[in-house]
Amino acid sequence: LNSKLPHVGPTIFSVMTQLANEHNAINLSQGFPDFQCPPSLIERVRFYMERGDNQYAPMAGLPILQQQIAVKVDNLYHLKLNAAEEVTITSGATEALFCAIQTVIQPGDEVIVFDPSYDSYEPAIILAGGKAVHLPLITPDYHIDWEVVRQSINPRTRLIIINSPHNPTGAVLTEEDMLQLSEIVNKNDLFLLSDEVYEHIIFDQQSHQSVLKYPDLYQRCFVVFSFGKTYHVTGWKVGYCIAPPMLTSEFRKVHQFVTFDTATPLQYGLADFMKSDPQHYLDLPHFYQQKRDLFCRLLSKSKFTLLPSKGTYFQLLEYSGISGLNDVDYAKTLTVDAGIAAIPISVFAKQPIKEKYLRFCFAKDDATLTKAAAILTLL
Amino acid sequence: LNSKLPHVGPTIFSVMTQLANEHNAINLSQGFPDFQCPPSLIERVRFYMERGDNQYAPMAGLPILQQQIAVKVDNLYHLKLNAAEEVTITSGATEALFCAIQTVIQPGDEVIVFDPSYDSYEPAIILAGGKAVHLPLITPDYHIDWEVVRQSINPRTRLIIINSPHNPTGAVLTEEDMLQLSEIVNKNDLFLLSDEVYEHIIFDQQSHQSVLKYPDLYQRCFVVFSFGKTYHVTGWKVGYCIAPPMLTSEFRKVHQFVTFDTATPLQYGLADFMKSDPQHYLDLPHFYQQKRDLFCRLLSKSKFTLLPSKGTYFQLLEYSGISGLNDVDYAKTLTVDAGIAAIPISVFAKQPIKEKYLRFCFAKDDATLTKAAAILTLL
Ligand SMILES: CSCCC(=O)C(=O)O
Ligand SMILES: CSCCC(=O)C(=O)O
Repeated sequence: LNSKLPHVGPTIFSVMTQLANEHNAINLSQGFPDFQCPPSLIERVRFYMERGDNQYAPMAGLPILQQQIAVKVDNLYHLKLNAAEEVTITSGATEALFCAIQTVIQPGDEVIVFDPSYDSYEPAIILAGGKAVHLPLITPDYHIDWEVVRQSINPRTRLIIINSPHNPTGAVLTEEDMLQLSEIVNKNDLFLLSDEVYEHIIFDQQSHQSVLKYPDLYQRCFVVFSFGKTYHVTGWKVGYCIAPPMLTSEFRKVHQFVTFDTATPLQYGLADFMKSDPQHYLDLPHFYQQKRDLFCRLLSKSKFTLLPSKGTYFQLLEYSGISGLNDVDYAKTLTVDAGIAAIPISVFAKQPIKEKYLRFCFAKDDATLTKAAAILTLL
Repeated sequence: LNSKLPHVGPTIFSVMTQLANEHNAINLSQGFPDFQCPPSLIERVRFYMERGDNQYAPMAGLPILQQQIAVKVDNLYHLKLNAAEEVTITSGATEALFCAIQTVIQPGDEVIVFDPSYDSYEPAIILAGGKAVHLPLITPDYHIDWEVVRQSINPRTRLIIINSPHNPTGAVLTEEDMLQLSEIVNKNDLFLLSDEVYEHIIFDQQSHQSVLKYPDLYQRCFVVFSFGKTYHVTGWKVGYCIAPPMLTSEFRKVHQFVTFDTATPLQYGLADFMKSDPQHYLDLPHFYQQKRDLFCRLLSKSKFTLLPSKGTYFQLLEYSGISGLNDVDYAKTLTVDAGIAAIPISVFAKQPIKEKYLRFCFAKDDATLTKAAAILTLL
């Protein structure tokens, strides 16, 4: 069998979580919370399972869940969606990203991705027959150089993928970025895929620059969200894609043969929960900012240098004061010897990354963060 | 946006279920049961959700669920699997089918499918850049003509897709079929995708000819199963793919970027249930055979002609004694005017189908079947 993805191994998330488990390390690698979702959310899922709602949901998702999402989008981003035609529920944000890329990319098409970038983008592009064009984010703040973007566009360029708040760096796009992007996308007749799974995890009073706030941009965009990140249920695998009707209709042609639909009782539970507590997500920035601040404060006496984390539940730490190893080796050493697992970020970039950074997930109980920081401070 | 799937509309399952709902018709179209799963299965899912098992499962599935599947396969098909390396949990059988096709098919490759065939195969082949070669099953019993298969193989042929028990016809493959298939697949260095989601729904004391019983064949095969069909939870979207380690390893490269993994509490619940009631599936043939026999008996005075249903929860009815409409139009008429929704089978075939058959799902309460049959008998 000729590999369709010859350069792909197990994702770094699987590798590091497994290593963490083997060595009984504190797992700050793969991004998931170690605290619980709202109990009433579970209670609602139980209710629907017991009521017997265990058969196929509609292919595009339960109408009541699509509707709740439309209500939220209107409240938050002042965009009035046609829920039935613009919202599709997916089996996690990963499926939404995959389907959006499959929908747009034909063999030979080029896709601009910004490095470091989430590890599913490029394999999805390759499987669609496309080619990822990697543009580096500019350190130290990981911003996009829009001039470089302009110069990279050619007749084969078809799609740009953005991700804000940005995994793994914690950078966020500004209003100015969105205007530049809008100009480029419209002028060159491109499509946009906006990975906004951390929309609610953004700090220091910034506001999330959702594509949904920019009508010109939205017209050419697939916008991907995640219930897992917002309600602390990464293991439920429910996400959604918002796109204009014409794009959604093509997206669904793909989605209906990739997974067809997504677990019915989970969708019902999420819909009820959104209805009963429509602004639950308003607490998230504060909640996670406290985690970030705690973790950073506890590390202030360590030999790590803290990078700014403006959003997501990830914090980059620079370790050149501690070790000369490359980040992949240092991540292993840290797991095995110190009992703390983190993610090396060079695996998210095409070009070698000279910075000595690891990504730590701070979506953890305060006690866990305290213990981890104490160990890291001893290094 | 140029459509990647220009010839694809909403699946017939969505179309007919929606029409059924609009007209308050008895929905015997899309295949799903209208009865409940074992209550203890729901109870176990609840337990794990409340215990806090709501974060990512491992990419390939929970080890305890992989293990239970291996135990079942050993009991049933006498094949000893390496659970960690040969069993991958997927977000429904649809995802497993999609990933298997993406794993094997490169642009230009040909795939043999037998018509009528399940509607997700061809779009998945097209998205991988391949071409479906449609060979008709031979009526009246919908068997495969292996000579035609042999003649259709050329250097571009890469994969054969089989499905037994067969949706939508209810045909099943025999031991002789499997030997022919094995000879062809091995001689021509092909891969095989075996859709066995109805493995336990097989009637009249026949035994299911799983590829897992044929070691020569299994070496080149992806075998796809569905918890939805076996435990009456089609809306949970949990399936699995069994394949030899080398194929599984490539399959997982795709799966990890298509959905990454599948809902954790559902996986835990299924694992516990399999462990506590390992042979629950042994009741299924009898259970569904009674449904089939009831439905057929009740229709004996109708103008429909019953075709043999050897497996699956579908029954084909021939309606030429009632209407001269083509099957798509008759399915609509039957839904709107008589209040019974069924599936036209011509949509599963490339060549026009002259037979006037509709597919009825008999996975319904006896009362529902009785009511439906009474209406159908009046026509
Ligand atoms: C799908 S596992 C990866 C989780 C995640 O998004 C991350 O850790 O970056
Ligand atoms: C994924 S919806 C289709 C259900 C089904 O397998 C069928 O009705 O044939």
